[in-house]
Amino acid sequence: MNITTPLASLRTGAPETAAAPETFDTRELQRLDSAHYLHPFTDHAALRARGARVIVRGDGIYLWDSEGKRIIDGMAGLWCVNVGYGRASIADAVHAQLLQLPFYNSFFNTTNVPALRLAALLAELSPGAAFQHVFFTGSGSEANDTVLRMVRRYWQLAGQPQRDILIGRRNGYHGSTVAAASLGGMAGMHAQGGLPIPGIHHIGQPSYAEGGRGMSEAAFGLAAAGWLEDKILELGPERVAAFIGEPVQGAGGVIIPPATYWPEIRRICDKYGILLVSDEVICGFGRLGRWFGCELMGFQPDLIAFAKGVTSGYVPLGGVLVGARVAQLLAEQGGEFQHGFTYSGHPAACAAALENIRILRAEGLVERVAQETGPYLKACFAALATHPLVGHAETCGLAAALTLVRGKGAGVHDCAPFAPQQAVGMLCRKHMFENGIIMRAVGERMIVAPPLSITTAQIDEMAERIRACLDLTLDEVTARGWMA
Amino acid sequence: MNITTPLASLRTGAPETAAAPETFDTRELQRLDSAHYLHPFTDHAALRARGARVIVRGDGIYLWDSEGKRIIDGMAGLWCVNVGYGRASIADAVHAQLLQLPFYNSFFNTTNVPALRLAALLAELSPGAAFQHVFFTGSGSEANDTVLRMVRRYWQLAGQPQRDILIGRRNGYHGSTVAAASLGGMAGMHAQGGLPIPGIHHIGQPSYAEGGRGMSEAAFGLAAAGWLEDKILELGPERVAAFIGEPVQGAGGVIIPPATYWPEIRRICDKYGILLVSDEVICGFGRLGRWFGCELMGFQPDLIAFAKGVTSGYVPLGGVLVGARVAQLLAEQGGEFQHGFTYSGHPAACAAALENIRILRAEGLVERVAQETGPYLKACFAALATHPLVGHAETCGLAAALTLVRGKGAGVHDCAPFAPQQAVGMLCRKHMFENGIIMRAVGERMIVAPPLSITTAQIDEMAERIRACLDLTLDEVTARGWMA
Repeated sequence: MNITTPLASLRTGAPETAAAPETFDTRELQRLDSAHYLHPFTDHAALRARGARVIVRGDGIYLWDSEGKRIIDGMAGLWCVNVGYGRASIADAVHAQLLQLPFYNSFFNTTNVPALRLAALLAELSPGAAFQHVFFTGSGSEANDTVLRMVRRYWQLAGQPQRDILIGRRNGYHGSTVAAASLGGMAGMHAQGGLPIPGIHHIGQPSYAEGGRGMSEAAFGLAAAGWLEDKILELGPERVAAFIGEPVQGAGGVIIPPATYWPEIRRICDKYGILLVSDEVICGFGRLGRWFGCELMGFQPDLIAFAKGVTSGYVPLGGVLVGARVAQLLAEQGGEFQHGFTYSGHPAACAAALENIRILRAEGLVERVAQETGPYLKACFAALATHPLVGHAETCGLAAALTLVRGKGAGVHDCAPFAPQQAVGMLCRKHMFENGIIMRAVGERMIVAPPLSITTAQIDEMAERIRACLDLTLDEVTARGWMA
Repeated sequence: MNITTPLASLRTGAPETAAAPETFDTRELQRLDSAHYLHPFTDHAALRARGARVIVRGDGIYLWDSEGKRIIDGMAGLWCVNVGYGRASIADAVHAQLLQLPFYNSFFNTTNVPALRLAALLAELSPGAAFQHVFFTGSGSEANDTVLRMVRRYWQLAGQPQRDILIGRRNGYHGSTVAAASLGGMAGMHAQGGLPIPGIHHIGQPSYAEGGRGMSEAAFGLAAAGWLEDKILELGPERVAAFIGEPVQGAGGVIIPPATYWPEIRRICDKYGILLVSDEVICGFGRLGRWFGCELMGFQPDLIAFAKGVTSGYVPLGGVLVGARVAQLLAEQGGEFQHGFTYSGHPAACAAALENIRILRAEGLVERVAQETGPYLKACFAALATHPLVGHAETCGLAAALTLVRGKGAGVHDCAPFAPQQAVGMLCRKHMFENGIIMRAVGERMIVAPPLSITTAQIDEMAERIRACLDLTLDEVTARGWMA
């Protein structure tokens, strides 16, 4: 783990640019982009002033832009390209399926082979093989939106239709449909368009750095889970249908709960008969070194939402794994569940998933995260935590975060934070992007979640770049007089 | 248009089965399907008793099931396979893109070439080239869900945040997310899970057969549009953000409004400053013989939702075309619109769309619907309307419906309907499915919406099967004593 390579050597061109032979007219592409393409979560006036970076190629953990610049993709696309870019066997599987049967719906008492095979495979892979039924959607947003409809339908069938409240968490992220964004706890999203919809409540997130001052992590985990019981009692247990959470909060900033948290959440849900939903859109398919994050966190949910890693993003796909408790009512006694999507069980998407999962298994990528790359990333990030700008580092599997601070302290509660309006995270991200590595900034938390196919040598390369960019950021914030 | 061929000749096997060389263990596939796959809009106990039909291959307008049986796909998948099955060039385009760059997000100030090219192409194809901005989603549900968030955000930016009500229509269908199903007016969906969400209201559908007794079609169209004005005045014009409708209601039963309807809707929206949204998920990309249904119906919306035909279903994709009025605020002055999806602008989906649109243009399929196949289908369906079981036939482009009745009358208001509980539409659908043609039943309306690549000879073949199956249905309902 040599993380002292000067940035200049990382910038030298030949091997980084030789692999992008096609030439692109970046200016013209940016002009078309700016004139016509409304990007997600983007300020377009700002984007136009700057010009979008045009990503044109991917291979393994690397991307290339239209200028021929090679970039380490520290975010696996958007937490999704688990097997990495350039997997010809997935492209081939999709191609074959598109020639054979590019689409058919699963309404009208019909099915297709990739969809039913994937459903059977997911049942086998599911935690304890306890989720024998799968409802397919086209995305994680649609999966969590489906969760809301499914949970309420369950309670109607169970004879308790008044149980219609779902509880999520502040800074939780469950997608961007109206219902999914309502389940999530992102204040910025709620402020645009009258969210959350009724019947959804939120509790705090189990962030030890934020709320655990004066407590052990274990005690904080129990206390944070206790917020759920407080909320249930406040609302009335007979009104509460379900609790939903990500095992590790992703977009919220890689918030890793104490080990005591999830088992206590499960205990509380059981105490009041409430359904527990694990949103595994980010954690599922190996991100935390298990097939599903709940397995690492030690709890068994009733429903699991998934997307992203199921196809490594090659073709859009999501869904809900349905445990016995819900399936028994919904599938056995429920009559028609009036819900579904044109692309539910899309043959080409399911073909991509089947090949993607074959790769994950054949290359032992999930186990490698648990045994090799996850621990290696943890050690690298522990080393990065010695940087003057870094207050603390947290990792779980191949999800990791560095918290930037103006002054270091003995523990996570003793650091001096930057003022939010200084936007030091975005400033750091800018240095990362300019120097060929993609990290995401969530406030002052700098996040990585690279492809699971990353090697330890590539983790070294990534950590070197991160350190070099931390240095550049430190220079800048020091020059501005922002350090303690 | 020979539509008298006896059914027996349509059943003879060789040419219909020879093209499916691969063999499938149907029982085992059905067992896996039943054990693990939760289908959309399905009663699973009933499905298990019956066993799902396994669709294994498609070519042109034809599908094959796992028993080697050839089927005419009268529904183009689910109103989506506009260019037909088996298009190798789309498979190749997707394959090339998956090898080049299978995924990248458009967050983080980045873009990709297929997404920006598709955005530019859609801007060019949009009605009057007046929709210069495109927001991509993964489905029609996500597109209409986005409409709700975008419309409310628009009014926030316009300084009228109290304009938060959207008006849809009874039996409208806008998708299956919580918000999209709320915008839709399907009673069965609303009954499961506490829909619609607040801030959504509905007016009646412009169904002349249902509500136009004693009126000319033109007068009924104006009257039905007037329901919107009534609702606006009831709610208070200062509270109403937008009206949304499908140019021709699809899942509601191919409800074709009188020509007077949509221009009057536009006039009313303008009168009160209300945004008008055209849901073109079904009508878009040629279904009605124009690129967008609003062009045929003579109105210019402010927003257009699309999906399905944009890729012919080969890869999931949807989106919203944004006109100048909304784009100006949202993209120019709005700061960050806090909305978007992982798969917004998915490179492989956009590559599929680009090739799909190239085919639609190169083969002149949209024009062919307007000039050749649409009129031909209309003539065939007019001939089918002479069948004793058919009260009336309606077609618009390549969307068509036959209404089954127990007794014919002089006009659409003079037929004797079947009792809903007799479920004659489902009975007819069963005969269709058993005899190699897929039609959808909406109550007693039997619907087709075949691939736009269908030839007149294939329309003849389809009409022959339909007539034969109408005969079988007539025999059955006559035997049951249900005819007048």
